[in-house]
Amino acid sequence: MRKKGNLIVISGPSGSGKGTICRALFQEVPDLHFSVSATTRKPRHGEKDGVHYFFLTKPAFENMITGDELLEWADVYGNYYGTPTEPLMKALETGRDVMLEIDVQGAFQVRNKYPGCVLIFLIPPSRAALEHRLRNRGTDSDDDIEQRLRWAEKEIGEVVNYDYVVINGEVEKATRDVYAVIKAERCRPALLDIESLLHKYR
Amino acid sequence: MRKKGNLIVISGPSGSGKGTICRALFQEVPDLHFSVSATTRKPRHGEKDGVHYFFLTKPAFENMITGDELLEWADVYGNYYGTPTEPLMKALETGRDVMLEIDVQGAFQVRNKYPGCVLIFLIPPSRAALEHRLRNRGTDSDDDIEQRLRWAEKEIGEVVNYDYVVINGEVEKATRDVYAVIKAERCRPALLDIESLLHKYR
Repeated sequence: MRKKGNLIVISGPSGSGKGTICRALFQEVPDLHFSVSATTRKPRHGEKDGVHYFFLTKPAFENMITGDELLEWADVYGNYYGTPTEPLMKALETGRDVMLEIDVQGAFQVRNKYPGCVLIFLIPPSRAALEHRLRNRGTDSDDDIEQRLRWAEKEIGEVVNYDYVVINGEVEKATRDVYAVIKAERCRPALLDIESLLHKYR
Repeated sequence: MRKKGNLIVISGPSGSGKGTICRALFQEVPDLHFSVSATTRKPRHGEKDGVHYFFLTKPAFENMITGDELLEWADVYGNYYGTPTEPLMKALETGRDVMLEIDVQGAFQVRNKYPGCVLIFLIPPSRAALEHRLRNRGTDSDDDIEQRLRWAEKEIGEVVNYDYVVINGEVEKATRDVYAVIKAERCRPALLDIESLLHKYR
């Protein structure tokens, strides 16, 4: 009896655990569609076009910008990253929920273009916990980590503008919370085909 | 990091399965507080004061009405039924969620007095399913059942005014959906002690 799917946007500071939770949901929620970003950066070893990213040339990406084919985009140190609108809208129209993992700035760009989306802010319980996560993944220099922590302090101020906030203290619990949000949002009257329900009561 | 609890109102036509789902949640969600109604009707065999109902005299109930001590109330065929405000507010202030099972009219009375509450509409998937449930419980006459079905047809029109709608096709699934709503609503930024979170990022 559903008319369409929900666009679920999971966002939060770098190191908050968005990727880990999306991978866990990918296992647990088979009918969830995961949005694939477009980028102009070169594929890394093992990355597949259309799976990890849509790998585009710069002119192709700029064509998508001018054609308004991106829900959001950003220029990160000379490489473009963005969310192609079309595959996402197609999934929503078939009634599937779409999961979009994105940074804080991108989340608000998405809401501007698609106000019905559901914004989830993911955040470790403390600065120390976030620092621990950033150091553990071993991909950032000390300076990078320091800068990411300073960004996080600012980004937390945005939490009031989100629909939900999930404290990522323990990955399993945070995943269950995000899943509860997805399940709850499936019960919104706006998604329900009310005509069809009324028809079943005649 | 929670400031207060949520008032969760589960409502729907007579026979929609509110009571069954509340009993299931009572087993599964230990920290949920279940609101106890006040009534002027006589206790039935096995019913305990303060557990199944607060059994009151008519003057005592009318004192609560005039003293604005009820979140909602109704006169049902000469007996009063209502929701005492105080125990419910006390539970919310300690951070516990409160579950209130109530008819459709009562649900909107509650929202008028406590706009932050969460309204869940529970409904079997069809008129036939509702009729089956009503006949199965064996407490209503044919005329009663016919009247309840006619009410249900009208009450379904209210679904758009609810926050969530849970289709009660299978009790276990519907219970999981209601539990997901409770869990998701616990993640609202308004409930979060943001000062305390910000403090942990300094």
